[in-house]
Amino acid sequence: MAIASSSWVASANDPESDFPIQNLPYGVFLYRETAHLGVAIGDQILDLYTCADHGLLSSLSREVVSACRARTLNPLMSLGRDAWSALRRQLMALLDAGYEKKRDVEALLIPMKDAIMRLPVDIGDYTDFYASIYHATRVGSLFRPDNPLLPNYKYVPIGYHGRVSSIVISGSEIRRPCGQTKAAAAEAPVFGPSKSLDYELEIGILVGTGNSPGHSIPIDKAEEHIFGLCLVNDWSARDIQSWEYQPLGPFLAKNFATTISPWVVPLEALSPYRVPAFERPADDPAPLPYLASSSREKDGIDLTLEVYLQSEAMRQQQMPAMILSRGNLRDLYWTIGQLVTHHTCNGCNLRPGDLLATGTISGPAAGSEGCLLEKRQNPEPLRLPTGETRTFLEDDDEIIFRAYTQRSGLPRIGFGDCTGRVVASQACE
Amino acid sequence: MAIASSSWVASANDPESDFPIQNLPYGVFLYRETAHLGVAIGDQILDLYTCADHGLLSSLSREVVSACRARTLNPLMSLGRDAWSALRRQLMALLDAGYEKKRDVEALLIPMKDAIMRLPVDIGDYTDFYASIYHATRVGSLFRPDNPLLPNYKYVPIGYHGRVSSIVISGSEIRRPCGQTKAAAAEAPVFGPSKSLDYELEIGILVGTGNSPGHSIPIDKAEEHIFGLCLVNDWSARDIQSWEYQPLGPFLAKNFATTISPWVVPLEALSPYRVPAFERPADDPAPLPYLASSSREKDGIDLTLEVYLQSEAMRQQQMPAMILSRGNLRDLYWTIGQLVTHHTCNGCNLRPGDLLATGTISGPAAGSEGCLLEKRQNPEPLRLPTGETRTFLEDDDEIIFRAYTQRSGLPRIGFGDCTGRVVASQACE
Repeated sequence: MAIASSSWVASANDPESDFPIQNLPYGVFLYRETAHLGVAIGDQILDLYTCADHGLLSSLSREVVSACRARTLNPLMSLGRDAWSALRRQLMALLDAGYEKKRDVEALLIPMKDAIMRLPVDIGDYTDFYASIYHATRVGSLFRPDNPLLPNYKYVPIGYHGRVSSIVISGSEIRRPCGQTKAAAAEAPVFGPSKSLDYELEIGILVGTGNSPGHSIPIDKAEEHIFGLCLVNDWSARDIQSWEYQPLGPFLAKNFATTISPWVVPLEALSPYRVPAFERPADDPAPLPYLASSSREKDGIDLTLEVYLQSEAMRQQQMPAMILSRGNLRDLYWTIGQLVTHHTCNGCNLRPGDLLATGTISGPAAGSEGCLLEKRQNPEPLRLPTGETRTFLEDDDEIIFRAYTQRSGLPRIGFGDCTGRVVASQACE
Repeated sequence: MAIASSSWVASANDPESDFPIQNLPYGVFLYRETAHLGVAIGDQILDLYTCADHGLLSSLSREVVSACRARTLNPLMSLGRDAWSALRRQLMALLDAGYEKKRDVEALLIPMKDAIMRLPVDIGDYTDFYASIYHATRVGSLFRPDNPLLPNYKYVPIGYHGRVSSIVISGSEIRRPCGQTKAAAAEAPVFGPSKSLDYELEIGILVGTGNSPGHSIPIDKAEEHIFGLCLVNDWSARDIQSWEYQPLGPFLAKNFATTISPWVVPLEALSPYRVPAFERPADDPAPLPYLASSSREKDGIDLTLEVYLQSEAMRQQQMPAMILSRGNLRDLYWTIGQLVTHHTCNGCNLRPGDLLATGTISGPAAGSEGCLLEKRQNPEPLRLPTGETRTFLEDDDEIIFRAYTQRSGLPRIGFGDCTGRVVASQACE
């Protein structure tokens, strides 16, 4: 495999690493109780704050250097694509195998295993879409058997607002929510712990530069506003959801917790892995003009997404996590640019740091379902290597999301893990 | 009318004033290009920042004084009920007719008519409820004629998340949104300016102290977490809404703009105006135990709410705004405490400054509909004094919300105006 360039950080050149020099995702970690920006490189983190302190970013503009000393990615996100590219080029130069003063940089690396990661972004608004037609169709067939895919689906990138306060970083415990649920045959609902806790495998789009109120973002400019992508787990309580969701959509079924990965992969790092957008069947309507991109042949992203589960019994028996599904971002009916443009087509303003999630990413085949709910149509229950079975999540189950892309002649670009372990509910009173 | 106490600020003693000494709502205004906290008193604003500077708050704790020097209400909101009461008592003392050093305070008043008001709160999350059964039933009958009130309504305080970035202060222009709409008979949707722009008359509940993730707020503690109330106009594009809202709820139909009033009325100021909560019909189910308050006899608030409209032609002919409806907050099916408790019953964390809006407040009678959509069931179109008619809003229409409470022997407590004027859409492309 011929990789264009490599790093003096040896672990970054491991073909299995998520974090080669071509990736350089951004995160925020605690350095002596203070939040610092960093980029992942192999099994290390390069501290951008101390890079700035040591004059290693002095070729960059004052705004970029100041953004590297911030406590969140927001100031950097607000600077726009040229600034992002300039910083990225400089960081690549510092980490390149041919860099002559690598000793100066080496001192600023932190082992990733020792780092405590924080939410990388101060998220102003969080929007969740529903961009997988396979997910929408399978879930629709459970909630509305006679009417699975609604007539608006192929015209409107369906989305709704989520909760910001309960967005947590990978590794945070997920407390099983209490709520109202009603069995189909019951007269009245009851209040108690959810019995159908689920994950949803999603990609988060982190907005860089926003738009002014009243001014939409044209489809061919949409990607210029995207800083990068992360993993998102939109934890969902299906029994609460099915009782509460009409007519205004999911609320308490979703807003108890949403987990995001610590690393934000720059959209620029994914450019060699772009693929054609989803091919609409011939009898599907064309997107309305405001959603019709002139670059459909590269509007998709070839990104493999995986879900793993490890139960308490598996941990005790030292069994590795078990894969539950494998899908691909390219299977979305709507592109990431269409989600951005649709969101702003009414003049709604996006701000730097806003999070737009794709909705559950599922493929057409069995084994590519992005949540457990979709697996309910399988005749066999999910069987774990311990002999346990699962319909939904049990307390102490850990869910791990992974995402990566790989192509012949190009390095693997990965997102790291996005994990969460379910803990028992509080007393539901 | 015997009013317990009066102020040396003469305009505060006018029985028509929204802002007697018993109200003292909080807001944020621009003072020489810097945001300062203030309280409304008659036609004046008392500047809390300069009060702190001049030592007029020195009897209060350091935290309260520091919060009075902040740029938003959030620090004060986070301090809790005892701190709010202590500050309120001190401000009442400074403004009381019997205050001996009124000259010291007089110099710190700003005429309200000269003040530029800002959003008073840095809102982290915005949730919109659907707490009026009259609204839910009338609107439901339009969207779902055979199924107006869904089976969950009398058990679940239905709510959903709104957009924070597009919350604007009273007086901001409201740009008509573009969006997808589909006529019932049409094959496919079209993209263009909304033709059915509407207002929604709501009250906003501003959260003071929040709750920790995973820990709900018990119903009998709910009001302790409420800092105060404001007016909210949840502008809505009905044609966009009816096409997009299934299955995940309203999105672009609502998130282009939400207007709030500049003044936040402390919940404490409303305590003399508390009334029994909505009396559920005998055959309605009782609230589930987690929503069952032990103080139903005072869980309601007697607050009159009014909507006025002034068209461009009315302005040109110097006609005053015309009243469109008059309702009352006490007509809500769910109390403000129930909204807070339900929101947290799954462990969802509220933060200081979060906004919970009630949803459209409508009463049972004709003339108490809190939005134009509900008036569509009237046989006659709405007729303005110019001879114009309205089904929905036209460009240059101004909508004005007012709210006040008044009881024999007690002063009028008002919210001031919450206004917005519709302007033509951008080019929809």
